[in-house]
Amino acid sequence: MGMTDGGRYVLKDTRRVGRVLTRVGDKWSVLVIVLLQLGPRRFNDIKRNIEGISQQMLTRTLRALERDGIVSRTILPSSPPQVEYALTKLGQSLSEPVLALGKWACDHIGEIDDAQSRFDARHESIDN
Amino acid sequence: MGMTDGGRYVLKDTRRVGRVLTRVGDKWSVLVIVLLQLGPRRFNDIKRNIEGISQQMLTRTLRALERDGIVSRTILPSSPPQVEYALTKLGQSLSEPVLALGKWACDHIGEIDDAQSRFDARHESIDN
Repeated sequence: MGMTDGGRYVLKDTRRVGRVLTRVGDKWSVLVIVLLQLGPRRFNDIKRNIEGISQQMLTRTLRALERDGIVSRTILPSSPPQVEYALTKLGQSLSEPVLALGKWACDHIGEIDDAQSRFDARHESIDN
Repeated sequence: MGMTDGGRYVLKDTRRVGRVLTRVGDKWSVLVIVLLQLGPRRFNDIKRNIEGISQQMLTRTLRALERDGIVSRTILPSSPPQVEYALTKLGQSLSEPVLALGKWACDHIGEIDDAQSRFDARHESIDN
């Protein structure tokens, strides 16, 4: 399937696709998926590895990803009991496009910052 | 670069990468990028092709994508003047991972809906 056909295919059902994208394109979801693609992790281990995420936001993100069937939650028979999070098979299939998007973001941050500065300078001189 | 290395690379700078992802992973941005990857379009043409987007939301999305250097805005010398939107070179490089993510969302909507129903049924019985 070429790029063009792919585009038409995605646009056939924008409401439902949009709903999925809102969930999986969320920045915290992307970062959790990228991390778990390296292997299963416990809550605190995830929190330590994602700079700037709060306890509450990580809880909410993991619960939403679990609800979507992207992340599994396993209670380990340790004392005290610990919870391990891992990508499901569905989550693993998602990790490929998500990683590609994350890598694009990494590679092009500089260009985006430059574009924003130029835009803001241009619009400041028009608006004032 | 393997998947694992790619993951570590993305996680090196989660704050800045997260900021870019918040912008480009937004569902309306994804749908606009997917549409413009088919070719340049005018405002009303974009609006017609993205079900459920409001005039205000499309204006805001296009302006943010223009600010990021992903979309260009050209005033056509017609009467009345019309504005055409197109992907820049940076936007074209983004369209590949974005299209892959959109296609994944399309292909797996059913699985996600099923997972959500199962999760909700499970938690309803626990919570009540």
